[in-house]
Amino acid sequence: MRIGIDLGGTNIAAGITSDSGELLFKDSIPTQNKRPSDEIVRDMAVLAKRLATDNDIDFSTIKSVGIGIPGATDYKSGRVNCVNIKMQNYPLVAELQKYIQLPVYVDNDANCAAMGEYVFYNGNVQDFLLVTLGTGVGSGMIINGEIYRGFNGAALEGGHMTIVSGGYPCTCGKNGCWECYASVTALKRQTAEAIEKDPGGMMAQIAEKDGRISGKTAFLAAKSGDKSACEIVDRYALYIADGIVSLENIFQPEVIAIGGGISREGEYLLAPIRRYVEKYRYNKTLPTTKLVTAKLLNDAGIVGAAMIAK
Amino acid sequence: MRIGIDLGGTNIAAGITSDSGELLFKDSIPTQNKRPSDEIVRDMAVLAKRLATDNDIDFSTIKSVGIGIPGATDYKSGRVNCVNIKMQNYPLVAELQKYIQLPVYVDNDANCAAMGEYVFYNGNVQDFLLVTLGTGVGSGMIINGEIYRGFNGAALEGGHMTIVSGGYPCTCGKNGCWECYASVTALKRQTAEAIEKDPGGMMAQIAEKDGRISGKTAFLAAKSGDKSACEIVDRYALYIADGIVSLENIFQPEVIAIGGGISREGEYLLAPIRRYVEKYRYNKTLPTTKLVTAKLLNDAGIVGAAMIAK
Repeated sequence: MRIGIDLGGTNIAAGITSDSGELLFKDSIPTQNKRPSDEIVRDMAVLAKRLATDNDIDFSTIKSVGIGIPGATDYKSGRVNCVNIKMQNYPLVAELQKYIQLPVYVDNDANCAAMGEYVFYNGNVQDFLLVTLGTGVGSGMIINGEIYRGFNGAALEGGHMTIVSGGYPCTCGKNGCWECYASVTALKRQTAEAIEKDPGGMMAQIAEKDGRISGKTAFLAAKSGDKSACEIVDRYALYIADGIVSLENIFQPEVIAIGGGISREGEYLLAPIRRYVEKYRYNKTLPTTKLVTAKLLNDAGIVGAAMIAK
Repeated sequence: MRIGIDLGGTNIAAGITSDSGELLFKDSIPTQNKRPSDEIVRDMAVLAKRLATDNDIDFSTIKSVGIGIPGATDYKSGRVNCVNIKMQNYPLVAELQKYIQLPVYVDNDANCAAMGEYVFYNGNVQDFLLVTLGTGVGSGMIINGEIYRGFNGAALEGGHMTIVSGGYPCTCGKNGCWECYASVTALKRQTAEAIEKDPGGMMAQIAEKDGRISGKTAFLAAKSGDKSACEIVDRYALYIADGIVSLENIFQPEVIAIGGGISREGEYLLAPIRRYVEKYRYNKTLPTTKLVTAKLLNDAGIVGAAMIAK
């Protein structure tokens, strides 16, 4: 068995998986991300051990611990840099090994999520890409069963491909990044702009009732046939497809999985994306990439963290 | 020693390299691409053997033959599909082996060029990306010393990333592809548009004198200080940088080389690209990708073809 820890800005989530990545047990505690990192690491160890005790698992049967973190990692040295958690060039692996005398591995959370979905997909595929649509757009690529990291460990910032040269300003300092158009944050902005133009429309009413504009506002109105909302959902699908096609043209992975809360819209979101991808993909003669929704969602980070040891 | 053959729409170029990829001898003959492919294959064999004879090389010392072709290849089966040469699902490897009883390999010409530049760069780098700016924009990626092909062999169509969503219509059927903005074809279009606006300007005069608008027109005028030409060159560099940054953010290769005839402009083109890349790249804390001009240019395809066997 293996342990995977998904260290987030809000919660520390941990799970015990089988050797092949089946999630058996999970638990979580608040991160309290403002406190010193040594305390966070101690709690990670406490959580990991409690997870074993609570489920009558002898800790000595655990083979490895993997950690996914929201930031840049040097997976070789085990040092990490997080913005939201006070870890600057922090020797996370060495620190956790003070409490847990096991092989400990660390990687970026998007990479871990990709590994988790890849293991769960389990389709004997060679190359697998996960795109996560959330506050931003994350991505992770598995090549021949291994995370692709680039020479410095920082690869697969697919959310920061330019899709509108000179377009919307991104937090990264560039303009027109994919995540400025395809993230849930972007969808909310697109919805807000439409509400501003039509303050009495259905989207405005839904937002009013919910007390806020969410990633669901446009989808709810579109499902009720609201024309303006249908346009937003369709254009959002096109923006997503624009980046998906770019990544497919580059990687030709056997599978691209779309994750993040918005993927719960399932075929309602996936069908128009698929239509655009089929229309616009470069490769029209050879076998083509399969487009699916991610399955593990929030658990992907835990499972993938556990499996990076493999 | 190895033989590399670069099968182009205009010429069949071939070379003999050392085992490690040093180009020793080269020669070429016209492709005459309208004739039956069997004749082309026979001439490829004649050229390869003549190259050995002319240079006093015993053909039995040749270890392998590699071929780069302008189209899609199934490098495992040795079958190829070209648009400009009459080869549809054509067993190129098997056909050439009728004349040459040696291991024969085939790959896409952009992949071969990437392998050639990688071998020549010889910097002990792990991941290496070549971008070729020509009629279109080609790219090839070497990961751990091997060509990355994707599950179907069609990967690395970097020229068909979207960089302007809904933008200029591309020959591939999508809009706003990188090659619609960063190819030499695009530069010529941008130059022509500027000339139309200012028919008496310096670019118009240069084009008039040359009898045509070329990829050099704007560069020549810009070097003489023409404001409108400087703007075109600067915007062209920005378009190139947009795609380079996207590919860097995705792959984090140790080196990105820019090839194609336009790369002969050297630092005059590379300096503004580098300035934009440094400003806009996502990774600002870890070691960064080195941006260089390709060195082998037209010979890259020959050397890379010879080296795909390795």
